[in-house]
Amino acid sequence: MLIPHKRKPYLAFTNFLPMIKEYIQSNQQRFLDELFELLRIPSVSADSRLKADVRKAAEYVVKKLKDAGADKVELCETAGHPIVYGEKIINASLPTVLVYGHYDVQPPDPLNLWTSPPFEPVVKDGKIYARGSCDDKGQFYMHIKAFEAMTKLNQLPCNIKFMIEGEEEVGSDNLGTFVKENKSKLKADVILISDTSLISLDTPSITVGLRGLSYMEVEVTGPNRDLHSGVYGGAVANPANVLSKMIASLHDENGRVTIPGFYDKVAELTAAEREALNKAPFNLDNYKKELDIEDIRGEKGYTTLERTGTRPTLDVNGIWGGYTGEGAKTVLPSKAYAKISMRLVPNQNNHEITELFTKHFESLAPKSVKVKVTALHGGEPAVTPTDSKAFKAASKAFEEVWGKSPIPTRDGGSIPIVSLFKKELGLDTVLMGFGLDSDAIHSPNEHYGIKNFLIGIETIVAFYKHYSAK
Amino acid sequence: MLIPHKRKPYLAFTNFLPMIKEYIQSNQQRFLDELFELLRIPSVSADSRLKADVRKAAEYVVKKLKDAGADKVELCETAGHPIVYGEKIINASLPTVLVYGHYDVQPPDPLNLWTSPPFEPVVKDGKIYARGSCDDKGQFYMHIKAFEAMTKLNQLPCNIKFMIEGEEEVGSDNLGTFVKENKSKLKADVILISDTSLISLDTPSITVGLRGLSYMEVEVTGPNRDLHSGVYGGAVANPANVLSKMIASLHDENGRVTIPGFYDKVAELTAAEREALNKAPFNLDNYKKELDIEDIRGEKGYTTLERTGTRPTLDVNGIWGGYTGEGAKTVLPSKAYAKISMRLVPNQNNHEITELFTKHFESLAPKSVKVKVTALHGGEPAVTPTDSKAFKAASKAFEEVWGKSPIPTRDGGSIPIVSLFKKELGLDTVLMGFGLDSDAIHSPNEHYGIKNFLIGIETIVAFYKHYSAK
Repeated sequence: MLIPHKRKPYLAFTNFLPMIKEYIQSNQQRFLDELFELLRIPSVSADSRLKADVRKAAEYVVKKLKDAGADKVELCETAGHPIVYGEKIINASLPTVLVYGHYDVQPPDPLNLWTSPPFEPVVKDGKIYARGSCDDKGQFYMHIKAFEAMTKLNQLPCNIKFMIEGEEEVGSDNLGTFVKENKSKLKADVILISDTSLISLDTPSITVGLRGLSYMEVEVTGPNRDLHSGVYGGAVANPANVLSKMIASLHDENGRVTIPGFYDKVAELTAAEREALNKAPFNLDNYKKELDIEDIRGEKGYTTLERTGTRPTLDVNGIWGGYTGEGAKTVLPSKAYAKISMRLVPNQNNHEITELFTKHFESLAPKSVKVKVTALHGGEPAVTPTDSKAFKAASKAFEEVWGKSPIPTRDGGSIPIVSLFKKELGLDTVLMGFGLDSDAIHSPNEHYGIKNFLIGIETIVAFYKHYSAK
Repeated sequence: MLIPHKRKPYLAFTNFLPMIKEYIQSNQQRFLDELFELLRIPSVSADSRLKADVRKAAEYVVKKLKDAGADKVELCETAGHPIVYGEKIINASLPTVLVYGHYDVQPPDPLNLWTSPPFEPVVKDGKIYARGSCDDKGQFYMHIKAFEAMTKLNQLPCNIKFMIEGEEEVGSDNLGTFVKENKSKLKADVILISDTSLISLDTPSITVGLRGLSYMEVEVTGPNRDLHSGVYGGAVANPANVLSKMIASLHDENGRVTIPGFYDKVAELTAAEREALNKAPFNLDNYKKELDIEDIRGEKGYTTLERTGTRPTLDVNGIWGGYTGEGAKTVLPSKAYAKISMRLVPNQNNHEITELFTKHFESLAPKSVKVKVTALHGGEPAVTPTDSKAFKAASKAFEEVWGKSPIPTRDGGSIPIVSLFKKELGLDTVLMGFGLDSDAIHSPNEHYGIKNFLIGIETIVAFYKHYSAK
């Protein structure tokens, strides 16, 4: 059912949302089929062997943006994976929303823990299981379908631009250059991103703070070759033992990071802010039960919500060295490695922290080993305003569709481009995510609720309605 | 040239050694060809996928023992890999030497560090490069060829038995049962083993002490699945960080192992013993240079020779957990693992130490993780007598062939069967090894000098001559 735009402008159309809802319902199988086709492409940006697949995913996004009604859709080359751009400018005097998302995904390892293959999406219990189903293919694709619905029903109330990149999971290395070189093309009034989580389907929320990231790889070298641990053990430094000791020393007995200067720029929350933050529903027993842990562990003096939302952290993301196969091999390894990342909060700076880590880690090494520290990935922490027109529109969208006011939350994850957009384009971001913390993103068996996907499309459309309201 | 035994008994034959030398020289290409054929069989006992190859190696040893002149050669089945037995009894009133060796080898990982494929032996700079070239195929095969030379030249001066097993690299699990069930078959006067190292080709030595081994695998489990380190980092115990801390705490600031009771039964050497031990040639600068390390590291108060020969140690042989692939994956791993082994010295006991380690390691775990400790492999420490007839014969053999007295040394490695033979058969062992510490056993590019192989055969024959001398 097409409604000519000029005769029935969207604001006058009181059945706006019910009509959208009907459109979503009658097209939902096609929406899911299209998403599944995208999920089948193993666009793992970290794996250089899959470069062609990453590009294939970009080309698919190009096609789908065109199908949905976007103009000037193009695959923009970068030094790495391409960025997909598209737009629909209906009237230069109307506001413009720039939608950001990413079509690349995390590596699927460890593969043996998946209950179904990561790139063969299946629906179980109303959830789509596949790598990228939530992060971020399933989430950014909602925007393309919301756009399609508004376009096909002639209800698009403002201008819209899309920028969907392919390097978010490896640090968005080439996005900065692209943004700097395309400032006029990317001119907009607000950025809209769905790449975060809700508290739950009963308790909608909008993310207003994101942690930054410094992701390092360290290599500790002892002897120049693997040695027989019987012949040399006890006389030659073992890099796996030394690395363990170095990692152990990175936290003190109160769970604080020991890197000198690490906390210097951390913005402490006011008592009022802490109180507000801790009002979010949180049940420690359920949290422990859901993770099957007997106890939590973190920085002394802070609640779990504070630890994950407002405090910087340091985690080993991977560690390896020596013999890791079946049985016993009495080797004194030549090398041991770890991937270590730090989550940052305002006003820490990724480059400063990377430097502090590097200097400190190198200083920890005894003379009996050599240490190499490499920065793999980084992003700045960010907070988004809650008093903007866009935030208020997002809030009203939830109220209208969900019947509940969303709770502002601070998320532990990082979307480094939020601070990039602020710096380069002067734009604030609204983080309207529809995932759940239990969606197992970055883990085996990542999934995304079909309900989240469909209600997300509806809520996004409602955002446009309220954002464009006079 | 066959010399009838009865007419020219070996002791009367003054050209005994020159004749042996000539036999070795004229047959050396065939000896090497035969060894290469054995080295081409990937008999990795730790790898269950290679079970058929392990058996193939055993069958090859059977054939070669028969060819060399042994009687009653058989492939003895066990619950694991088979044991090869063979004998030549020339006169019940003469002494009997029981030769032990192992045809199984260590896994070849990491494969990418080999300069030639591990199971395709090649000769470079006079050395045979292949997995098992030194440990122990190249070494036990010297005994078969020494036996062949003595048999073919009718110069065998005593009885000889062979027991070549296929599970030395995985703990000789089934050898104990075999020995217990075959005590009369294995009746002998001394055990002879070549599975150790010389100080150098200029400085012959005989090993008189061996460290024992307790080899453990530990598994630390945090949350029940891999988590997003942004969403959960800082609030949930990270098993890789926790494992690092637990490993770090296993040594104190003096390099001593912190497991309660670990040193309780350690036999301290007398001042005289320490002095004798430290007389062995050792050049710290060369040692560091050869390993490309700036400094050594070990238990305070002991020299390198003492640390590797007489002190118990603890080493991480392998560590793994989380994301270890290319690039960055912000995962908080569910599990982290390590293989940790301890070298033991008299009078430590492998089972006691295994128990002490398990209890202590479990006690180190905070409530926020679960820990599983598994014993993979073990063996008792041993010292061999230096005043026995057999040791003196070995000493004289070196003097005769090398023109130098061998230095008694204590090796860091473990041959757990030495204490088993003492306990079950009441027999002492002579450890007449011809490897070099630089042979890279248990490492990529394992090699064994052709010179070591040939002079080893000659020295072994000389041992029989002196051992059988009236």
